Amino acid sequence: MITHPAYAVAPWSLRERELDLDVLAQSESVFALSNGHIGWRGNLDEGEPHGLPGSYLNGVFELRPLPYAEAGYGDPESGQTIINVTNGKLIRLLVDGEPLDLRYGRLHCHERELDFRAGVLRRSFEWTAPSGRTVRVRSTRLVSLTQRAIAAIAYEVEAVDAEIRVVLQSELVANEQLPEPEGDPRSDPRVAAVLDSVLQPEQDFARDGRLRLVHRTARSGLRVAVAADHRVSGPAGTSASAESSPDLSRLTVTSVLGPGQSLRVEKIVAHGWSALRSLPAMHDQVDAALADASETGWAGLLLEQRDRLDEFWAQSDVELEGDAEIQQAVRFALFHVLQAGARAEERAIPAKGLTGSGYDGHCFWDTEAYVLPVLTYTAPRAVGQALRWRHSTLPAALERARQLGPAGAAFPWRTIDGQECSAYWPASTAAFHINADIAFAAQRYTSATDDREFDREAGLELLVHTARLWASLGHHDRHGVFHLDGVTGPDEYSALADDNVYTNVMAQQNLRAAADAAERHPDRAALLGVDDGETAAWRDAAARIALPFNEALGVHEQSTGFTGHQLWDFAGTPPERYPLLLHYPYVELYRKQVSKQADLVLAMQQRGDLFTAEQKAANFAYYERITVRDSSLSACSQAVIAAEVGHLSLAYDYLGEAALMDLADLEHNTRDGLHIASLAGTWIALVAGFGGMRHSRSPRACPSS
Amino acid sequence: MITHPAYAVAPWSLRERELDLDVLAQSESVFALSNGHIGWRGNLDEGEPHGLPGSYLNGVFELRPLPYAEAGYGDPESGQTIINVTNGKLIRLLVDGEPLDLRYGRLHCHERELDFRAGVLRRSFEWTAPSGRTVRVRSTRLVSLTQRAIAAIAYEVEAVDAEIRVVLQSELVANEQLPEPEGDPRSDPRVAAVLDSVLQPEQDFARDGRLRLVHRTARSGLRVAVAADHRVSGPAGTSASAESSPDLSRLTVTSVLGPGQSLRVEKIVAHGWSALRSLPAMHDQVDAALADASETGWAGLLLEQRDRLDEFWAQSDVELEGDAEIQQAVRFALFHVLQAGARAEERAIPAKGLTGSGYDGHCFWDTEAYVLPVLTYTAPRAVGQALRWRHSTLPAALERARQLGPAGAAFPWRTIDGQECSAYWPASTAAFHINADIAFAAQRYTSATDDREFDREAGLELLVHTARLWASLGHHDRHGVFHLDGVTGPDEYSALADDNVYTNVMAQQNLRAAADAAERHPDRAALLGVDDGETAAWRDAAARIALPFNEALGVHEQSTGFTGHQLWDFAGTPPERYPLLLHYPYVELYRKQVSKQADLVLAMQQRGDLFTAEQKAANFAYYERITVRDSSLSACSQAVIAAEVGHLSLAYDYLGEAALMDLADLEHNTRDGLHIASLAGTWIALVAGFGGMRHSRSPRACPSS
Repeated sequence: MITHPAYAVAPWSLRERELDLDVLAQSESVFALSNGHIGWRGNLDEGEPHGLPGSYLNGVFELRPLPYAEAGYGDPESGQTIINVTNGKLIRLLVDGEPLDLRYGRLHCHERELDFRAGVLRRSFEWTAPSGRTVRVRSTRLVSLTQRAIAAIAYEVEAVDAEIRVVLQSELVANEQLPEPEGDPRSDPRVAAVLDSVLQPEQDFARDGRLRLVHRTARSGLRVAVAADHRVSGPAGTSASAESSPDLSRLTVTSVLGPGQSLRVEKIVAHGWSALRSLPAMHDQVDAALADASETGWAGLLLEQRDRLDEFWAQSDVELEGDAEIQQAVRFALFHVLQAGARAEERAIPAKGLTGSGYDGHCFWDTEAYVLPVLTYTAPRAVGQALRWRHSTLPAALERARQLGPAGAAFPWRTIDGQECSAYWPASTAAFHINADIAFAAQRYTSATDDREFDREAGLELLVHTARLWASLGHHDRHGVFHLDGVTGPDEYSALADDNVYTNVMAQQNLRAAADAAERHPDRAALLGVDDGETAAWRDAAARIALPFNEALGVHEQSTGFTGHQLWDFAGTPPERYPLLLHYPYVELYRKQVSKQADLVLAMQQRGDLFTAEQKAANFAYYERITVRDSSLSACSQAVIAAEVGHLSLAYDYLGEAALMDLADLEHNTRDGLHIASLAGTWIALVAGFGGMRHSRSPRACPSS
Repeated sequence: MITHPAYAVAPWSLRERELDLDVLAQSESVFALSNGHIGWRGNLDEGEPHGLPGSYLNGVFELRPLPYAEAGYGDPESGQTIINVTNGKLIRLLVDGEPLDLRYGRLHCHERELDFRAGVLRRSFEWTAPSGRTVRVRSTRLVSLTQRAIAAIAYEVEAVDAEIRVVLQSELVANEQLPEPEGDPRSDPRVAAVLDSVLQPEQDFARDGRLRLVHRTARSGLRVAVAADHRVSGPAGTSASAESSPDLSRLTVTSVLGPGQSLRVEKIVAHGWSALRSLPAMHDQVDAALADASETGWAGLLLEQRDRLDEFWAQSDVELEGDAEIQQAVRFALFHVLQAGARAEERAIPAKGLTGSGYDGHCFWDTEAYVLPVLTYTAPRAVGQALRWRHSTLPAALERARQLGPAGAAFPWRTIDGQECSAYWPASTAAFHINADIAFAAQRYTSATDDREFDREAGLELLVHTARLWASLGHHDRHGVFHLDGVTGPDEYSALADDNVYTNVMAQQNLRAAADAAERHPDRAALLGVDDGETAAWRDAAARIALPFNEALGVHEQSTGFTGHQLWDFAGTPPERYPLLLHYPYVELYRKQVSKQADLVLAMQQRGDLFTAEQKAANFAYYERITVRDSSLSACSQAVIAAEVGHLSLAYDYLGEAALMDLADLEHNTRDGLHIASLAGTWIALVAGFGGMRHSRSPRACPSS
């Protein structure tokens, strides 16, 4: 855990008052800037030292083989891993012949501040080189929310007490050497091998202040281009020159600064990628984006950024009295959730946003279950686009279902482009609930926004194909009860159980929503082959779905038989053996009563209408005590239901857990990127938990148009 | 499937009347010779053409990494694969300058015969070289059941119609090039890479008629030695010379044969291996074995072999009137079961014996559940030794249980030396029943033989440590019922279910047997820490163990909830989609009613005392119809219970399936080795099924000595 006295509590920013190299990687995640299309980790301008260098473009990945010592039918053959694209943020400095590197010399002060309203990361420090000369550096960095392809930096260096020769190198660097990943040494060593030097050079360019590099990934065949323009201002005699090679394009500025004099460089960077477009087209694309942004200029970009954020905060701010730390945390959370989704624009919103390479940059169910509900009320346009991305992957989901057996669509557990990338099926393929999570997000979005075009063009198909999955996966028993057997719910410490309540209540909602949608759009539904018999079967399955309940205990069963299992030996589990999955095998976890995360509790959050107040209280009391804190997806749901059943102090604790997940690095992996869903959960815990907000309105019936 | 008109039906041998190169690999398995220590596949003397060259030594394997795209705690890191050791059976021939290769020239006739009473493989053929000269070749091969390290060949070539120059090369060849394995291309490509050229040369020798090679495996560090002696007889002018290099030691014999003249070579081969012994010690070991066998001589080896088999058949033959094919098949089966176990001597008996490299040469639960029961009544000494091998692996099983969580011992699902080698835990680690299968085999062996020394030295510990596993894995519910949750039974189309009846009845037997054994040996039990409280807890758990029964259907449930699952769509499954595991994902198979193999039916076979006649009939009727024939382990159990409940014609069909599994290549993988358990099942189907034999006697109480 970061003990972070360095982070100052302030209402509208996160300020770090000193640099701690031991937690540099965590701070790079916390200070990451993104617009959902481009992600720049909070790496120091000069590139080194670093925890994990990271520049990401949403949708840019490399393929890698997924190895199996014992393969099963349907196991995906190929995985996808987000890659570190060309680094456009580098600005190196030579001070009287010595490289500015904070591991040497003396650092007098160092501050970084992420400003939630300005949408920039500011940095300032004063450093004395080993030679004894001192400089003061200020930089401001943004990734534009208004110009999707654009990021920019203003960098200024000042001589403090003596004349100094400085050489500033503003660079674009491809194929940066990455540190060895920490993690399980049993993982396939080829992963790292494949992902070294993934970018194959296609073009490099440097002239005057303009730099450009174009590369292509070897297996996935994606073309990535980056270009930069510069405005340099310095004392007389300041001069600049540009040069390039396949993996490096560089502007070199030399200057002699008298005491108090400064050299300032404004660098505007344009990123682009495509799976289809040609080299000249990509080259033109980034040049055009640069031309537009250069016209706007650095000051203009700053203004646009603030305007966009003013608008966001005016709609979306959550004000909290009496707890300044949580006040800061919820704004930090909302800022990062916005960054993750704002301009993703028909690409996935990954679990880590674009703040790190954790989980290979994959998107999971938590996007629809945690992130989109928050964006639905704060940045709804992003939700429509995120769901249109899911819709665009329907062909892959239909094909996956065909491969697996059931009808309808089976969306991937983890993916970048829509293909299933999970290599452990009991906790992925079997977790069919992701399909209902997607359907629920679509239903909620349509209901909140009345976006009829979306409903008709994408929502209906999402609902129909997922409803078909449920109808086909399940079956009616002799008594007519509808069962979904052998599935995995949200709790990853159980798997392959019958009638998981969360899955069943979500499937129920999905089946009904699909029938409703088909009635809203009978013409389109008919084109999908939906007829009255099919919708009647959906409604019937929904009406008769099993919800296992243990009468003796007076609680629902997470899945059939769950409450009959042996209780986990919590008393005999020392703190250092958490998270359990790193210290106990699944065979031990699956057969006992222990939940990694809210499962039945999440069911009560999503479908509160189905549970009586007494059931909620009894269920919460039962499941809260067996739910460990091994998943970042748990705290917010626990907070919501704890608040609902009256355990306000406990709810407050859970709120704190969700809110500080990354700021306090509670799961020790913030270095790999932020937990975007947990950040969204901060808002959910506050607004749904303490605020008591529930979304219950169904989409209005509208005439088919 | 082999349609095998080439195999003649005869009571005491398997004779192949012509050579079909398309099914060469299958015939190599069928004609394999072994004594449980050495295994020689039925490769042609001249080495090529071949299906799969194979010479194996029980216990000689190489290590290979097991890759995981998503590793879990407790997944084994390293696998073991049986290796093709130095080939001692090669005898090449040059006929007037042309190599004898049956793919060229003209083959007039070709016969091979596996003689179950003589214990030899005979071969004869007449071949005209492309040059027009014809030779007649006869060879006889044995792997000695009496001299464990010894195999031998008598090879004779005769000029038929003209004078011929022949050059005969008798060889020892290490690191033979193996054909690319057929199979899933998604398997890790490193497997093949690692297992190429696994033998590192340490010594080569050739002088006069004596050849020798010593090698060592790179990762597993096992030293393998092989030596050969020769007796050559031919016309005047026949001469011989020897030479060697690191991977080849060779005796070359040249001769000119007039019409009707022959050249005869008797080759005696000694194999040895050790993980500990030095190069000189190994070199002496094989030389000593050779000295002994040379003293016995070829004729003596033949006599010993026949004596040993006369003894075996006198005790163990099964005579069957009215079905000559099954009569042959059961002797073929008994012969191979004996070969697999006879001289294994404290090594594992692998699923394929030493007839091929299938399943990596691993030993599974079927050794104890199918093979040892047959050997208990036919070659009991081998059973004591096989169980002493299991006992010798107790330290690894205790360590594995410690890693997994429960107390006691957790024996590996698949292994060569006792370390777990399975990379798919739901169908291995969770299949805890293997521990009860081992315990049951020990109990049966002790009961059948009164081997009190074994009982006291090994049986007790096997029973106690497996009983502890069950006591720890299970738990009593509020009503006192003892449950075993989240385990996998024999049926590999289900997994991670609660209260699998087979597992529970076997665990019950195990718990009671351990308590009984502890009472027979109170002093030794006390040393293991067993006290009255512990045995009382075992008996209590056994008495209260859950046996789920569906009252409405009047049948037991394979596992809790099983009969409530959706039925597999058998009508919608075309024949070409069997075996199901190659065409449907586990997620689809596991949640439906379809069994790969006898599970509840096996429970009724092993614990017939627990089921009423009505239950047996109802259960058999229910489960027979949902059991597909995708496992070779199923037919014999189906036959036994079908016979018991009166379906004699069906029982006969299942008997045929077990009996012809390899002779008719019913599962299309006999090329990789024989199904030793299914061969054993032929005996079980006949003796327990049609003969009605049941083993019910408990070990006699004997005074602690």
